[in-house]
Amino acid sequence: MNILKAYMARELPRINQTLYDLTKDLEPEVLPLVEHVLKAGGKRIRPILTLLTARAMGCTRNDVYPMAAAVELLHSASLLHDDILDNAGLRRGKKAAHLVFGTSHAILGGDILFALANRIAAEYNIPALTHCLAQAIMHTATGEIKEIALLRNPAITRAQYLDIITGKTAYLLQVACQCGAIMAGADATGLESASRYGLNLGIAFQIVDDALDYSSSAAVSGKPLGGDLKEGKFTLPLVLYLQQLADEDKTRVMDKLASNAMDAKDIAQVVGAIQSLGLDVQTRQEAGTYITRAKASLEHLGDTPEKNILLSLLDFVLHREK
Amino acid sequence: MNILKAYMARELPRINQTLYDLTKDLEPEVLPLVEHVLKAGGKRIRPILTLLTARAMGCTRNDVYPMAAAVELLHSASLLHDDILDNAGLRRGKKAAHLVFGTSHAILGGDILFALANRIAAEYNIPALTHCLAQAIMHTATGEIKEIALLRNPAITRAQYLDIITGKTAYLLQVACQCGAIMAGADATGLESASRYGLNLGIAFQIVDDALDYSSSAAVSGKPLGGDLKEGKFTLPLVLYLQQLADEDKTRVMDKLASNAMDAKDIAQVVGAIQSLGLDVQTRQEAGTYITRAKASLEHLGDTPEKNILLSLLDFVLHREK
Repeated sequence: MNILKAYMARELPRINQTLYDLTKDLEPEVLPLVEHVLKAGGKRIRPILTLLTARAMGCTRNDVYPMAAAVELLHSASLLHDDILDNAGLRRGKKAAHLVFGTSHAILGGDILFALANRIAAEYNIPALTHCLAQAIMHTATGEIKEIALLRNPAITRAQYLDIITGKTAYLLQVACQCGAIMAGADATGLESASRYGLNLGIAFQIVDDALDYSSSAAVSGKPLGGDLKEGKFTLPLVLYLQQLADEDKTRVMDKLASNAMDAKDIAQVVGAIQSLGLDVQTRQEAGTYITRAKASLEHLGDTPEKNILLSLLDFVLHREK
Repeated sequence: MNILKAYMARELPRINQTLYDLTKDLEPEVLPLVEHVLKAGGKRIRPILTLLTARAMGCTRNDVYPMAAAVELLHSASLLHDDILDNAGLRRGKKAAHLVFGTSHAILGGDILFALANRIAAEYNIPALTHCLAQAIMHTATGEIKEIALLRNPAITRAQYLDIITGKTAYLLQVACQCGAIMAGADATGLESASRYGLNLGIAFQIVDDALDYSSSAAVSGKPLGGDLKEGKFTLPLVLYLQQLADEDKTRVMDKLASNAMDAKDIAQVVGAIQSLGLDVQTRQEAGTYITRAKASLEHLGDTPEKNILLSLLDFVLHREK
């Protein structure tokens, strides 16, 4: 992990400076909301992925930062809209933008950041960049619509679960890598490798996230356990739990889930059962499949410091405890 | 007007077919909302502008329709989000999408249509198209934020009013014309002409719209008068009305407006005063300034049927009664 941390520490100031430079001329009615979102922090993992992919693929351009920042702006736009959908109270520990500035402002602020990301991409005169961004937004928003459609539906299948998390999480990590590959002038094979790396990393990231929501080790993160269950987001640990129940028990639990009749005790009981059956651990192991695929997609790349960091990032995602 | 009507009647089927072709492969969770918005009708004035501008500027490409449809998709995306902001009940006579499908679905549907418009533009391999679309979205959303910030603020100046309507309405008409010029391969002068035509047309269109909200002739449209006043949207007729009041009366009316204490009788009284002072007519006359500018921007274009239609559209916008 140390090479990743060192890389992030080195690159973060320039990424943040670029984000500042690209947003500072927004109108005074818009800027405070954008600053609120950007200053809330976040790990900037997406722009870091753009830089790493570009350099691992031999990029020699010195103008990668604006594109990397554009990917972060796309992510920020998505967060602004997500928090409205989820009626989230907090984002990265700060009051969510829609509560500070109002829903209308947050919707329009998201639209502005989506457009700004596209404008930055258009300035490179490489239409493939815009095409990738557009696809990522479409897939992400579609994933979120699917998630909402399946909210509180305990009959969700593993395939539907994977479809949702690929949509809502993996495409934005994928596009970060695709943009890096395009900036490096990668050929079709290179672009495909970057795509597969980002997509599988994203799926694994979300599966681990969903495991952590049931995992006692997550207590270190300060997040209460079973939050997804409470919100009616039925993720892989629950899918695995329902699978192993006898038909009668399964019907009983599913009825309760479907009618939103779970109280705090019921939730604690399901969380406890998932832990004692080791299904949180099993969930994390399933993430390993995608980590392996992501690793394989880098095989043909020559040895560079950036390739090693991309590999170490995979280990970090698989083993993270918060 | 007849040449415009004939042109629209001729082009609408192909525009609608293109919209259908470009959206039919959206996921089944997304498609019904998109169909709801597109099938609600609308005059398709923006794609018509793209076709007219392209052809008036000598476009010989036969692939203008997808770009024209992309401009309509951009507009539809903007409507989806606007109706949430305004908490609109109806759109084009049909129940607004956010009430049929839910707010979350409407936010995400808007994001998808914005992205689809960008993807279509990217497929032309002309980055200027994407750049224009991005600018238009940023300006439009910023205009809407400014409008919200000045809602129920009767101290709104004429300059602020113009800034708001330029933002919320004119940029989307401008971009329709810009895209046409770009498709025609126009040089910088040509692009500037198309931009000025669209922008001034858009400003005039919105000023007339705001005049109609106070104009007795608008009764034919079935829209109740004074709707903007009721919603706290203070437009040019009200700015003109306040200007001519004596200081004491002005303070009294402005206090009432600011505290949202206008009842139906107060609203009817202001509407009546604006009509008897002829301020709705004066507002429409102010639109004439922008119509003249739009006309001037076409001067250097050679005579074509499309140029004549662009000119007749200006007359229609200035004299329309609904």
